Amino acid sequence: MAEGLKVLSAALPADVKLETTEYDLGARLYHRTGETLPDAVLEELKDRDAILLGAIGDPSVPSGVLERGLLLKLRFAFDHHINLRPGKLFPGVKSPLAGDPQIDFVVVREGTEGPYVGNGGTLRAGTEQEVATEVSLNTAFGIERVVRDAYRRAQARPRKKLTLVHKNNVLVHAGHLWTRIFQEVGREFPEVTTDYLHVDAATIFFVTQPERFDVIVTDNLFGDILTDLAAAVTGGIGLAASGNINPTGAFPSMFEPVHGSAPDIAGQGKADPTATVLSVAMLLEHLGYTAEAAKVEAAVAADLAERTGARSTSEVGDALAARVSG
Amino acid sequence: MAEGLKVLSAALPADVKLETTEYDLGARLYHRTGETLPDAVLEELKDRDAILLGAIGDPSVPSGVLERGLLLKLRFAFDHHINLRPGKLFPGVKSPLAGDPQIDFVVVREGTEGPYVGNGGTLRAGTEQEVATEVSLNTAFGIERVVRDAYRRAQARPRKKLTLVHKNNVLVHAGHLWTRIFQEVGREFPEVTTDYLHVDAATIFFVTQPERFDVIVTDNLFGDILTDLAAAVTGGIGLAASGNINPTGAFPSMFEPVHGSAPDIAGQGKADPTATVLSVAMLLEHLGYTAEAAKVEAAVAADLAERTGARSTSEVGDALAARVSG
Ligand SMILES: CC(C)[C@H](C(=O)O)[C@@H](O)C(=O)O
Ligand SMILES: CC(C)[C@H](C(=O)O)[C@@H](O)C(=O)O
Repeated sequence: MAEGLKVLSAALPADVKLETTEYDLGARLYHRTGETLPDAVLEELKDRDAILLGAIGDPSVPSGVLERGLLLKLRFAFDHHINLRPGKLFPGVKSPLAGDPQIDFVVVREGTEGPYVGNGGTLRAGTEQEVATEVSLNTAFGIERVVRDAYRRAQARPRKKLTLVHKNNVLVHAGHLWTRIFQEVGREFPEVTTDYLHVDAATIFFVTQPERFDVIVTDNLFGDILTDLAAAVTGGIGLAASGNINPTGAFPSMFEPVHGSAPDIAGQGKADPTATVLSVAMLLEHLGYTAEAAKVEAAVAADLAERTGARSTSEVGDALAARVSG
Repeated sequence: MAEGLKVLSAALPADVKLETTEYDLGARLYHRTGETLPDAVLEELKDRDAILLGAIGDPSVPSGVLERGLLLKLRFAFDHHINLRPGKLFPGVKSPLAGDPQIDFVVVREGTEGPYVGNGGTLRAGTEQEVATEVSLNTAFGIERVVRDAYRRAQARPRKKLTLVHKNNVLVHAGHLWTRIFQEVGREFPEVTTDYLHVDAATIFFVTQPERFDVIVTDNLFGDILTDLAAAVTGGIGLAASGNINPTGAFPSMFEPVHGSAPDIAGQGKADPTATVLSVAMLLEHLGYTAEAAKVEAAVAADLAERTGARSTSEVGDALAARVSG
């Protein structure tokens, strides 16, 4: 996080004053107070221009507590319906895929619906008769806005190609709604070429033919799965950035690395800050600092192309900040 | 399918009489009668020892009709709760992954619950206010039987390692039920080493470290996604076999290639029958013909190790049958 802020400062024009507030949420707060996101913090966050979120998650906290109580709470409270995740293989970065694949796509993951709504329950908990449900909720309203956003992004890219990923042969209700809206909105974008893939088939193409993808639009859960796979084939989760975007501006958008908190190496100063720095580039872009965003991304690209030995977290941050200022 | 039956005949001991009945279901039947699986056929199938299913799916039939009306109907009617899918990279087969990964795991996918139950609905269909739901149903009973089966399989393998894959940090109700039962049943198998991965993280390991997996147990939908990815990294969907197993024997188990019907090359005699032949090996194994199953798998392994130019579907079938008889 410190390296991300370092690069952010370096990138901003001299006349822009950067004002930051740090909130120490996550495992520490939870153990001290039992809270994950105090109401007062949520209120204060509403007035910020943007949020930069460090990876959360800690083995000492039961699975789901921080995820639902902090990360997903923010995504839902601030209606982050566009979860944007580029899948780009930078020159010089080794992919686990053979050959030298050219990978440059972006996944537009829905962020506020689907199986993530937290609409589940348990009957006869702890018994041999336990039943647990999870309900995926999907609305025309929610799908239409993310699908339209994805078409706009596809329209703005050279290849102008948009792929819908779902599982409409099994999840027929949700799948048919996604498919209908995808087709309807598509009429407004005659220049965009479209296709459809079942999520299982999409994973195959991610490893056998990743160059076929340009923009992908998909459901919250499928997007979660596909973007980790995208990170893997583009050189690892250490480089994958993401934006949780509310394009209306009603609430601040939030930027975060896709990777987790890596508790095994926490505090040792060897985590790669690149994913956070690329998330800073997305933050700058979102706030209209397009040239500055491009500068940060270029700095990362140049750094990746020249990487040799291991460097500490702050060495990478310093190198990137120097490139951005230089 | 013809090649699968050819190899099945060749593999069976001389004193075993193979009796087969062919049902022409799928797109052709649907267009003629609107039916996908007539009740009379379902009744007849109950008395068979096993079912070998050819790939279904046809672009002329709306998505979901054959999947829900034929394939999933059979899986549910015959309570195929163990959906068994090996992920094995045979020597001589090229993986899209760099390096020469050693891949030999098996996914035990739950087959009768989760988001596949068909418990969804649509409100205000076709309008701007449409809402669509999909309910994932999970029972202690259903999870326990597949988890125990997976432990048994892990126990019987040299590495004795079992990984649970779910998304228990988001799908907390279903996820916690899976996790609880996984831990409880584990106490009966002290020799089995276990771990847990979120489904998104699992996809990363599938491409960066597939050798880490031995046996994987997972939910119906996650299993669907992971096994296509497994097929991709082990040389393609043309080689991936599967068994839909009801270990109680109350109903016939069903064996099928993981791949689809490939309508673009249907009838041209160039589809690779290997996945069907490997499914035949699983069928033989299931019916107790263990030596015969091993012979078929060995024939496939030998054939794959020596593959050079393109061969027709029947040439591959003939070669495999010859190896099995020889
Ligand atoms: C931590 C978890 C709740 C989260 C998700 O599932 O969305 C993460 O995997 C991600 O992709 O941002
Ligand atoms: C065809 C489809 C219904 C099926 C599934 O989703 O289970 C297939 O993808 C599979 O993996 O067998």
